Amino acid sequence: MKIFGGRATQELTVAICQHLGVHAGRADIFKFSNDNTFVRILENVREADVFVVQTSVPPVDEALVELLIMLDALRRASAGRITAVLPYYPYVRSDKKDQPRVPITARLVADLLVTAGADRVVTIDLTADQIQGFFTIPVDHLTAQPVLARYFRSKHLTDAVVVAPDPGAVKRAQRFAERLGVPVAFVDKRRLPATSGVRATAVVGDVRGRPVILFDEEVDQGTTLLEATELVLERGAAEVYAACTHAVLSGLAAERVSKAPIRELVVTDTVPVPPSKRWNALTVLSVAPLLAETIRRISTGESVSALFE
Amino acid sequence: MKIFGGRATQELTVAICQHLGVHAGRADIFKFSNDNTFVRILENVREADVFVVQTSVPPVDEALVELLIMLDALRRASAGRITAVLPYYPYVRSDKKDQPRVPITARLVADLLVTAGADRVVTIDLTADQIQGFFTIPVDHLTAQPVLARYFRSKHLTDAVVVAPDPGAVKRAQRFAERLGVPVAFVDKRRLPATSGVRATAVVGDVRGRPVILFDEEVDQGTTLLEATELVLERGAAEVYAACTHAVLSGLAAERVSKAPIRELVVTDTVPVPPSKRWNALTVLSVAPLLAETIRRISTGESVSALFE
Amino acid sequence: MKIFGGRATQELTVAICQHLGVHAGRADIFKFSNDNTFVRILENVREADVFVVQTSVPPVDEALVELLIMLDALRRASAGRITAVLPYYPYVRSDKKDQPRVPITARLVADLLVTAGADRVVTIDLTADQIQGFFTIPVDHLTAQPVLARYFRSKHLTDAVVVAPDPGAVKRAQRFAERLGVPVAFVDKRRLPATSGVRATAVVGDVRGRPVILFDEEVDQGTTLLEATELVLERGAAEVYAACTHAVLSGLAAERVSKAPIRELVVTDTVPVPPSKRWNALTVLSVAPLLAETIRRISTGESVSALFE
Amino acid sequence: MKIFGGRATQELTVAICQHLGVHAGRADIFKFSNDNTFVRILENVREADVFVVQTSVPPVDEALVELLIMLDALRRASAGRITAVLPYYPYVRSDKKDQPRVPITARLVADLLVTAGADRVVTIDLTADQIQGFFTIPVDHLTAQPVLARYFRSKHLTDAVVVAPDPGAVKRAQRFAERLGVPVAFVDKRRLPATSGVRATAVVGDVRGRPVILFDEEVDQGTTLLEATELVLERGAAEVYAACTHAVLSGLAAERVSKAPIRELVVTDTVPVPPSKRWNALTVLSVAPLLAETIRRISTGESVSALFE
Amino acid sequence: MKIFGGRATQELTVAICQHLGVHAGRADIFKFSNDNTFVRILENVREADVFVVQTSVPPVDEALVELLIMLDALRRASAGRITAVLPYYPYVRSDKKDQPRVPITARLVADLLVTAGADRVVTIDLTADQIQGFFTIPVDHLTAQPVLARYFRSKHLTDAVVVAPDPGAVKRAQRFAERLGVPVAFVDKRRLPATSGVRATAVVGDVRGRPVILFDEEVDQGTTLLEATELVLERGAAEVYAACTHAVLSGLAAERVSKAPIRELVVTDTVPVPPSKRWNALTVLSVAPLLAETIRRISTGESVSALFE
Amino acid sequence: MKIFGGRATQELTVAICQHLGVHAGRADIFKFSNDNTFVRILENVREADVFVVQTSVPPVDEALVELLIMLDALRRASAGRITAVLPYYPYVRSDKKDQPRVPITARLVADLLVTAGADRVVTIDLTADQIQGFFTIPVDHLTAQPVLARYFRSKHLTDAVVVAPDPGAVKRAQRFAERLGVPVAFVDKRRLPATSGVRATAVVGDVRGRPVILFDEEVDQGTTLLEATELVLERGAAEVYAACTHAVLSGLAAERVSKAPIRELVVTDTVPVPPSKRWNALTVLSVAPLLAETIRRISTGESVSALFE
Repeated sequence: MKIFGGRATQELTVAICQHLGVHAGRADIFKFSNDNTFVRILENVREADVFVVQTSVPPVDEALVELLIMLDALRRASAGRITAVLPYYPYVRSDKKDQPRVPITARLVADLLVTAGADRVVTIDLTADQIQGFFTIPVDHLTAQPVLARYFRSKHLTDAVVVAPDPGAVKRAQRFAERLGVPVAFVDKRRLPATSGVRATAVVGDVRGRPVILFDEEVDQGTTLLEATELVLERGAAEVYAACTHAVLSGLAAERVSKAPIRELVVTDTVPVPPSKRWNALTVLSVAPLLAETIRRISTGESVSALFE
Repeated sequence: MKIFGGRATQELTVAICQHLGVHAGRADIFKFSNDNTFVRILENVREADVFVVQTSVPPVDEALVELLIMLDALRRASAGRITAVLPYYPYVRSDKKDQPRVPITARLVADLLVTAGADRVVTIDLTADQIQGFFTIPVDHLTAQPVLARYFRSKHLTDAVVVAPDPGAVKRAQRFAERLGVPVAFVDKRRLPATSGVRATAVVGDVRGRPVILFDEEVDQGTTLLEATELVLERGAAEVYAACTHAVLSGLAAERVSKAPIRELVVTDTVPVPPSKRWNALTVLSVAPLLAETIRRISTGESVSALFE
Repeated sequence: MKIFGGRATQELTVAICQHLGVHAGRADIFKFSNDNTFVRILENVREADVFVVQTSVPPVDEALVELLIMLDALRRASAGRITAVLPYYPYVRSDKKDQPRVPITARLVADLLVTAGADRVVTIDLTADQIQGFFTIPVDHLTAQPVLARYFRSKHLTDAVVVAPDPGAVKRAQRFAERLGVPVAFVDKRRLPATSGVRATAVVGDVRGRPVILFDEEVDQGTTLLEATELVLERGAAEVYAACTHAVLSGLAAERVSKAPIRELVVTDTVPVPPSKRWNALTVLSVAPLLAETIRRISTGESVSALFE
Repeated sequence: MKIFGGRATQELTVAICQHLGVHAGRADIFKFSNDNTFVRILENVREADVFVVQTSVPPVDEALVELLIMLDALRRASAGRITAVLPYYPYVRSDKKDQPRVPITARLVADLLVTAGADRVVTIDLTADQIQGFFTIPVDHLTAQPVLARYFRSKHLTDAVVVAPDPGAVKRAQRFAERLGVPVAFVDKRRLPATSGVRATAVVGDVRGRPVILFDEEVDQGTTLLEATELVLERGAAEVYAACTHAVLSGLAAERVSKAPIRELVVTDTVPVPPSKRWNALTVLSVAPLLAETIRRISTGESVSALFE
Repeated sequence: MKIFGGRATQELTVAICQHLGVHAGRADIFKFSNDNTFVRILENVREADVFVVQTSVPPVDEALVELLIMLDALRRASAGRITAVLPYYPYVRSDKKDQPRVPITARLVADLLVTAGADRVVTIDLTADQIQGFFTIPVDHLTAQPVLARYFRSKHLTDAVVVAPDPGAVKRAQRFAERLGVPVAFVDKRRLPATSGVRATAVVGDVRGRPVILFDEEVDQGTTLLEATELVLERGAAEVYAACTHAVLSGLAAERVSKAPIRELVVTDTVPVPPSKRWNALTVLSVAPLLAETIRRISTGESVSALFE
Repeated sequence: MKIFGGRATQELTVAICQHLGVHAGRADIFKFSNDNTFVRILENVREADVFVVQTSVPPVDEALVELLIMLDALRRASAGRITAVLPYYPYVRSDKKDQPRVPITARLVADLLVTAGADRVVTIDLTADQIQGFFTIPVDHLTAQPVLARYFRSKHLTDAVVVAPDPGAVKRAQRFAERLGVPVAFVDKRRLPATSGVRATAVVGDVRGRPVILFDEEVDQGTTLLEATELVLERGAAEVYAACTHAVLSGLAAERVSKAPIRELVVTDTVPVPPSKRWNALTVLSVAPLLAETIRRISTGESVSALFE
């Protein structure tokens, strides 16, 4: 078993390796001055069970192409089996054709990974379970919900309600609510006639006087979260927490969310959160133990699903 | 342009051909006494733009394999381009791996269609938009929502609310609500601790005193619809309508739903509804005009998306 | 090594497992009320050498699709190698394009199996050896002829002649005759000018005063067998036996053959023969030992062909 | 429409082009002194409907590789559609795995053709119809039987019988007999215990006093034909004719067959018959009109099967 | 015929369209704040002959992935045929495995393009002709050498010699020398024992008193060019010119080369040269007429090679 | 580990096996009188790590097709992993499209090998490193340069210069010069205006008074070598040696080169050199130790590149 990390995911790779008590595989990865990525694997990988850990983080395309190049290098170096470990799946939200003549980039990414040499995939909390069907190679689709739920259970919030900040997030929010044994509600959004945008217009379900836990797979620009926070407070919520697996926090998200009336935002490290994007009310839980144990089980042929029972 | 219909979809095929003013392609399709399906295409299809219409209806596997065999026959007969038209997509709900060691049959079906010779696909109201990403060949994913919405608008229901009978249906119900310009709500469901089943436990959102339109992509056994009906009436709904694209109506569904306090169930003919499964409060709208116009546009290279603008 | 049986082949799977001293793999396979097949593998199969046994028996398409779904489930569950064991190959007689615009369904089936995840195939007595060439994955094509020949040799029929009931069966009948060390003859069939049917018109070769063993790969409706029986008796055959690997016995075959002047019909259990289709003069030999030993050898890397030397 | 001929099939290509009133496509094909084949297409083929005619004739592998190289050159030159026309299919008799660890070279050839760029195939009288199933691209499988039958009907042989010289040839001999409206018989062959060879041992069916037409797809070394001739004459045949589509005539075949008591051997020019292999009693009929008309129909999208009705 | 340009290649696309007298296809291409690229094709492309022009320019991976996403969008929008036009091929120099465990990224790029939907490729001056063999789809490999040679011929340099600045560039420099009818020489480079670098060590061939034209496919950092310039001047060259198809000019190349004793550097616009990287002695010739004429010929099925005769 | 040799490479295979202390795998390979190659593997290869050694030697196409047939036989016989070992790669010089409408046969060969069942490839001194990129399966591209360099170093030639006899050979000659620590030069060649041929016209670099070592990957007809010899002697070379990996020696090469003023031609046995093509000044070094050690390392998963460090 050998584990290599892409440049975008060094810290998490090291954490995984520590859990497994192995050294990260050595590779020389850099950019030439012409912006071309170069990869050289520095140790023999013939017949080895190789894992490459690379998450999607800006510059997104660079991280993706670097991963593809690593896969090609490993395949040509006669690796026995290659597993791409994608804590946050690239282009995960481009998973359907909801307008004329748009791509389905998440499917394209699946095909690119297989073309480049991936034999199997591990990923966490896809925004739609169906994305697993974009592959025919085996996919271990993990969820960080148990990690987040354990944390929230330890807070003993009375009468809490999980709120999906978007109609598209209801299904997964409902699953989280079920884990916590609390009700679920959601924020409705409507297209604005004058513009092409959408706006949060209503809270469907009861939040008055209760602690609200906003739940979504990811927090990107934070706009959805902020609109939802505002609306549930307007509708009488007692206080607002938020939980998201993937801390994308793009643009001014960190600044804006840190100033919002959210008591605590709980995320994981599927996307690295640099110090500049951290604030007091941000809690980052690690998925390294989860990924380490998954890799161990794949390597030894033990059941991965048993991990979630 | 030549249009062939599978045995499961004869009526709809004829209706489509009438709209287009063409004759359905002639084919000999039957089962030998050993239950093997035989197909013979009875007219020259060399270089032709061929459409094969086959929906998913019991016996489901027979309809699917018949379609695959037709595709193989057409391909070997040198058809120019073959479009599989699937009004109701086979195994549409098996679109994710939500338990250990289950298949993703909807993806398997996609691969089987391509293996057998399909060059492109037309289908209607997939339960998840992501299923389109199971294909890399072009898919025209149509929706019958405009057909259903036009019908409901003509009823002038005051103060109506669209209700998703299931957390998984919220997103599409919300889209339907937006078409009608009314609010949306949903029925929450929870796993029962003692058994492996789930039960409708709450209406999230406001239904009191309003006409409710339950909306889902399909009505199968009717259980979800009946539970939701009961619950929204308990919560004070004024009256209950229901709208579904696909009238699967399996088992005793027709009998049970016809006796339920639902003023009207509006469906389409993507799945054929035999007289034995019809009752007074069931309205069946036809998708034949929609499919005919789509086929015409594919054949002439006109925009299909423009059909929905 | 893990062996799973499709629902159509439970009995044979159990017999194979008993020979090998293993338990059949546990799987949950059933149909929803909407006629969709559901499969869940109930034990860990990561890296395992998996065999799926499924024969072709009505409802034929259901058995085939169930097999494809099982393959998909096993592949996604990270099985190490998947062997599809097909005692009676689906659509085996649709192996050529002998009319305009017909499919070659036996080839289509080969492609579907590979598409769904089969890494190798085991099957018995294909009606044409060439079907093995429909695959590029390894195929172990077994024959039950030794099993049938051993049985007939023990009967010590003097002066017997093996008769192919059809010109297409001469080659394999000749091989069987060679095993028994007896001559071969065949029944000629001609197309009737008035209809599109064919009729047995002549016995080519000498049968007078001899016990005849009609030999074919399969007995389906029994018409071919009955016509041949009538004709060889007309031409003075002393008595008639029949031997076929695959007891398809479709339609009224069992009833009609049981009443025919055939002293004994000897078949195998590649197709399950239910009690309702059994009669005194029907002898069913088991291929379970043959399949068990083949599976054992595949699993350990021993020569399978040595089994037939 | 452009037609190119391989070096092994120049004469037939020219004949086909004459029938169609077109010039053969110009190409530079030769061998370097290192025995490497070079191909250069000398005219623009962009978007053209290209046919490449190449039969299998010694040196067999050179003819095959030359064809593959021509396909690659045409594909890279942006030909619109490429049809490989194979009057005598390479390695046609290696179509099954009838011994342990042998190849199925006829299937391999099918895959090589597709790999090199063939979009469709035309061929004549495969020794097994199943070989068509080795392809998933469209195959037009023609037969020269009407050409041969027309010739024999014109001879008005009274009381003739068609005899298959081998059990494996019965099915196609029977079809030829049916065309002529005469009975069929065959020569049985048995493995010799002492050696690994086989020997013609019996005539199954009645030949006494009748003109015999031995029929097989091909005549290779002539041994089968000579053994059969000897045997049917021994059994009282009045005279012996022979008909074969493919005049392989390898080794000393021409010399041996020309001296045998065969009144006339009728073949076609699917394999070129050089003057040195011709004798008085050899009649060579041309398939050029058949191939020309087939190519014309493929190119215009007319039915090819109608040609045989 | 429709021509779309990636964001990295807008100017050249517009120039090509002007030559052809067509409007560039309209598309919406931008990055979300999470750095994910979004593409929407804004006009109907069904059955159209579509060309997508995208060169490789930093950020290189972004340009590449944007192209892949455009291909996916066009394919799903039912484009008839898609040609990727790559003026400067991405990762062109990563075309071999010259160290252990490195990728061959130029081949990977070829596979990615095909996976994403490219049906054919147009590109200019690959550093190795063999890269064309990384594809099996048709590639039109153009050269800008005639454009550069025409320019240099017009300068009437007496007694000039073309010098390859690197042993790997000899072959193409020799071809350029042949076009100009002048001799060729080259700069040898050797690995330095102490470091892992290489250094220009000798001029092989005669340059004394002659005008030197340094020729290479591309100028990247300029180091190779500067070393060669210094060396040929040391060896008595009269003056130094340089010609390169691809003006990569990465890092400080523009600044360094502009200050070097090179009388004129002649390049093309396969890579856009921004004003900030231009200086007096830099001449940029356009490949737009070449690409425009090539696209026109592909679209009408005329010979492209004729363009170079 | 099992090693099989094609008929064209028996001697080298035996030498490799001796180095490894194993017996060559037993196979029955011969041609039928109809020139069809037959292959039967005579020992069980299930799950075995199989190597097939076949070089390219006239009749070139026969050796290639024989290899493809062996691969198919091994794959169908359930070999675990199949490595094609190609000491001299077939059609290695047809690696680019340098004229209109020519094939890239070296790429075609790569695809044929994979189609027939090769899982990996070992080869020696491809004329272009880029050919490795024609494959996506792992390729171990070995070089015989260390073998040749060791031999020349032992000769202690003072002041030697390595000369590429062709502009296309400069890069690899330069690498060889670097191994020997001597300068490099090359022979320029120009197209002759009147004919379509090329002629050696100049020596670029200094050879006067020095021993010259002409270096090329292969010696085919010898023309290039003879022209270069003549020219370097004219320019004052002290004496001429030549080194080539592949001794193709086609046509009259052996005769002509043996009579030329070349003191010694050093080659390897990647191509078998029969006694009739040997002369006193020809030295043949063996690559058997190199191939044996490579095969051993592949089989045990050790680094192959370490072999060259």
